[in-house]
Amino acid sequence: MVTSPLKDLPIGVFDSGVGGLTVLKDLLKKLPNESFYYLGDTARVPYGTRSKETVIKYARSCVKFLLSKDVKILVIACHTASSYAIPVLKSEIELPIIGVVEPGARSAVRKTKNNRIGIIGTEGTIRSGSYQTHIKILNPDVEVFSRSCPLFVPLVEEGWVEGQVPYLIAQEYLHSLILNKIDVLLLGCTHYPLLIPTISKLTTSIEIVDSSKETAEEVYNVLKSKNLIRENIDTINQSVRYYVTDNPEKFVEVGQRILGSPIENVEWIDL
Amino acid sequence: MVTSPLKDLPIGVFDSGVGGLTVLKDLLKKLPNESFYYLGDTARVPYGTRSKETVIKYARSCVKFLLSKDVKILVIACHTASSYAIPVLKSEIELPIIGVVEPGARSAVRKTKNNRIGIIGTEGTIRSGSYQTHIKILNPDVEVFSRSCPLFVPLVEEGWVEGQVPYLIAQEYLHSLILNKIDVLLLGCTHYPLLIPTISKLTTSIEIVDSSKETAEEVYNVLKSKNLIRENIDTINQSVRYYVTDNPEKFVEVGQRILGSPIENVEWIDL
Repeated sequence: MVTSPLKDLPIGVFDSGVGGLTVLKDLLKKLPNESFYYLGDTARVPYGTRSKETVIKYARSCVKFLLSKDVKILVIACHTASSYAIPVLKSEIELPIIGVVEPGARSAVRKTKNNRIGIIGTEGTIRSGSYQTHIKILNPDVEVFSRSCPLFVPLVEEGWVEGQVPYLIAQEYLHSLILNKIDVLLLGCTHYPLLIPTISKLTTSIEIVDSSKETAEEVYNVLKSKNLIRENIDTINQSVRYYVTDNPEKFVEVGQRILGSPIENVEWIDL
Repeated sequence: MVTSPLKDLPIGVFDSGVGGLTVLKDLLKKLPNESFYYLGDTARVPYGTRSKETVIKYARSCVKFLLSKDVKILVIACHTASSYAIPVLKSEIELPIIGVVEPGARSAVRKTKNNRIGIIGTEGTIRSGSYQTHIKILNPDVEVFSRSCPLFVPLVEEGWVEGQVPYLIAQEYLHSLILNKIDVLLLGCTHYPLLIPTISKLTTSIEIVDSSKETAEEVYNVLKSKNLIRENIDTINQSVRYYVTDNPEKFVEVGQRILGSPIENVEWIDL
């Protein structure tokens, strides 16, 4: 078998900001010999409150940047961008693109026993109906209940993830989903895994699905099926280069909290 | 005296989003015969978390748009843009530009009796030190205590301005300022006036300064000094045209809550 040079190209990951680092964290665990380019569009974050048109425009410019860097696969770690832009981008480019919506939906459908799934996300993700659509394709019998949680992202970005305030906010947001007797709660936003300790207190009998783990699994499977996983060679180390469109200092500060390890090699780019 | 045609031109108001409508509300009260152009940069909001360079770039493109519409004066209703961009913009354009920082600082200095002023605002506004600088110029003896309050804007945008959650968040943010025995609290962000009922519960002996009122006063004074106030003519009605860079529906929905009256004539523009 001829070794493809494609194997050695990096994996391109794009998110609206720091949130996608939860996805990168799982990719780093799952793919120990790869190099990554992570682009955070911190000059235009958050995507969750923007219109479909604007999200597609922003996502397109971010993807164009990563393509210019030569990557072997694209991961869209942002749920809002995955919801709105993946259908468009798939028709525009040839490289495999993995979003966070399909893997998350698949896992939730696999896990529900009573066919009642709850989804929480940004306004954009919920309004797009993308999770509902993917779940209904997989199993039309599943009932989907959704709620946007606009304060969760700013809570996480401020590092205010435990205590009375996050608990009361989560209680308000999750109230109607719990009343609707969901048995699976899908976290439809990259920031939300950091609120799991608080959310769990309200949802003891509900299984929480974190799309980032499922997405890392999906990226692994796609690379494997295309024979694109980089082999374990002594001289190769896992590496990440970061690109941000604004405020690298803040990206490092908040990002390290999310990633749980040091962030280096951050370049400020203009899109 | 010859009537200047300049008088009939609109007043241009620019903000990063809907927050500046608190300033527009006071301008509408103070100047009953004027027409206004209000530009909300909703595709790139919030400015409060961005770098100085990016805020200046965004503010410059917004101001350029309003100048292309022929206005007689520019009001920058956003505290972060006022803090970072006004010094630069003043050197670039000839039209009078009024920001929200100087009027607010002047009012706070006039009102303090113990020379201890507290300022709350976005991360950008607080980091810029603009209020501190203006206050120190007016009275070097004043001690300034500041705190950024990142959750206040999302709370207001969600309409969650009363009850236990906003109270607990305000308590956390204002704690150190109260301990520092401030007697004046300056609201250094356009969204914060909507939280006054909650903030007041924590600051009963502290006078709250809302920059929007002071800014409207300043705009009136500058126009009057230049003989640019439009006279009361029966056929002229006060009017506002709105321009937004994204999501006009959401602008109308949240904006009407802030303005307290209907919003019509909204045009979606691309900057």
